[in-house]
Amino acid sequence: MKSDVASERVTLADVADEAGVSLSTISKVLNGRADVAPATRERVEQVLAERGYQRRGGGRSETRAELIEIVFHELDRIWSMELIDGVESVAKEHGLSVVLTVSGSRHSPDADWVEGVMRRRPVGVVLVFSDLAPEYREQLRARAIPFVIVDPAGDPSPDAPSVGSANWSGGLAATRHLIELGHRRIAAITGPEDMMCSLARVDGYRSAMNSAGLSIDPAWIRFGDFHVTGGRDHARELLAGTDRPTAVFAGSDMQALGVLEVARELGLRVPEDLSVVGYDDIPLARWLTPRLTTVHQPLRRMGEEAARLAIRLADAPIGVAAPTPRMDLATSLVIRESTAAPADA
Amino acid sequence: MKSDVASERVTLADVADEAGVSLSTISKVLNGRADVAPATRERVEQVLAERGYQRRGGGRSETRAELIEIVFHELDRIWSMELIDGVESVAKEHGLSVVLTVSGSRHSPDADWVEGVMRRRPVGVVLVFSDLAPEYREQLRARAIPFVIVDPAGDPSPDAPSVGSANWSGGLAATRHLIELGHRRIAAITGPEDMMCSLARVDGYRSAMNSAGLSIDPAWIRFGDFHVTGGRDHARELLAGTDRPTAVFAGSDMQALGVLEVARELGLRVPEDLSVVGYDDIPLARWLTPRLTTVHQPLRRMGEEAARLAIRLADAPIGVAAPTPRMDLATSLVIRESTAAPADA
Repeated sequence: MKSDVASERVTLADVADEAGVSLSTISKVLNGRADVAPATRERVEQVLAERGYQRRGGGRSETRAELIEIVFHELDRIWSMELIDGVESVAKEHGLSVVLTVSGSRHSPDADWVEGVMRRRPVGVVLVFSDLAPEYREQLRARAIPFVIVDPAGDPSPDAPSVGSANWSGGLAATRHLIELGHRRIAAITGPEDMMCSLARVDGYRSAMNSAGLSIDPAWIRFGDFHVTGGRDHARELLAGTDRPTAVFAGSDMQALGVLEVARELGLRVPEDLSVVGYDDIPLARWLTPRLTTVHQPLRRMGEEAARLAIRLADAPIGVAAPTPRMDLATSLVIRESTAAPADA
Repeated sequence: MKSDVASERVTLADVADEAGVSLSTISKVLNGRADVAPATRERVEQVLAERGYQRRGGGRSETRAELIEIVFHELDRIWSMELIDGVESVAKEHGLSVVLTVSGSRHSPDADWVEGVMRRRPVGVVLVFSDLAPEYREQLRARAIPFVIVDPAGDPSPDAPSVGSANWSGGLAATRHLIELGHRRIAAITGPEDMMCSLARVDGYRSAMNSAGLSIDPAWIRFGDFHVTGGRDHARELLAGTDRPTAVFAGSDMQALGVLEVARELGLRVPEDLSVVGYDDIPLARWLTPRLTTVHQPLRRMGEEAARLAIRLADAPIGVAAPTPRMDLATSLVIRESTAAPADA
């Protein structure tokens, strides 16, 4: 491995030369140490990026921690666990431990996290985010820390390796199931309008309706947050009139809970008076009364595949162009008790 | 800090001398490196333990990773998340990242984990276990890695710092609530007989019954696993006869789910024909029909307190006898819809 070290040094010396700083400063920047002036750090990062410097990776070196990192913007207690569980099981197979961090906003982790991960030097990173800002990508690349986006939101950057699930197919399957039961007046509550998964699910719904020759009242399509309140607020409006829909496809199981609540308030029986399909198949879906028909998202498997991909990228020989695969795992409809033929069918 | 390093070296030299190995071998053993013969490792560990060698800790040194570790024997998707969430929030306050590992059996982590943690060198460890084997404790002590047991099972070793919750009081509060509603025939399903939390909860139940002058049919007290099946199997037997109990205090919300299922099978309405109290207050408790009356375990706060204690122990000056506090956080009864006065009261 002596030649590796030597060639790394040569390149680092070039970077130091061009940035006009010492080798030890370069090393501090590479390792995310705090004791470097911001302007110096910026200059070094710029030269590292321009020169396309990449630290020697390729296999687990002594300097690399036996860690794989998973980053969330928040720990959602209902489904973060499944992703963590998937990452952990693959980590264990490879003798790695899992570091779990919480950082940033819904779309991307923040600068603090990036500095921390450079110090921790994990084998790879699984990001439960839609994207990673270009400058942070560059910083990870220079340090040979590969990342994979796990993206239940379905909105990945095309040039980043990512694992998602088939949102459009999920929306299609849920709606087809309702149509096959005889429903004609079907509403869809989905997530925020700026999330690709919301759009993909609702497009699946639209395609199923269109294929069956059913028209869609624009008032039947609702965008909201993925929480219980989102389902509740929209259901109150959807189910108020006499010409109400006979079925609701909700964008999450939590929204479906909100719909079930409103149905109870209004004295509507589920599934006799109203059919409800959820999305996610979180553990509580099977314990509700009625047990919830829902679209299963393979969250555990998404965590596994993302971890596997990160490790594969870490082990790839340097210089080989990294693949940037996008993998969408299949969703599947789980039929339970909250859906039935409409009363007037 | 020169003097610290010097005094550490002296002690290490003593250890090396006595074990008849080189300083670099000692260092390998201390850092959990694999390239040491098992017999040598054992001899070194023995000398380290006999001499009471302790690595310099006290504050975050350069050599220590900015990590705090939480160890489970399995990732229970329903409540591990709350503990992780608690540990993570305190870790973030202290600029630490959380390493999550899964290891060992219900009672204690295994040797692989101990070797791994010596390499990772976290600031501290939160163990979601009843205990840590004495030799592993000694190994962590020698490396100045403090540990705190989070112990929902209520069975801590008296000389280990631990955070639990008030199981006995929880059992008492649940049973008193049923008695106050007018129930006389109250059964208790609890966890395995070899877990202290099972015994403590059932003792709380007994005390509440005794204080109220109510007799207990021995058939009303059931030990089983904490899962749905445990509740279901015992409920089938408890609720079969005509002289069935009018209320069941279940040892976990999952067991309570099993009881609710059996009630449905038998056509018993909850709470009109049967009152049910759970334990834990997991997220789904509030979404069941009827919403579950249950004993709230402060899992998130238990995670927080354990992390705080581990960090406090890590920051304690060396030589100061470490405190071995046991902290029991309060449980509280959450009254929802699954309990009411008995029909015949």
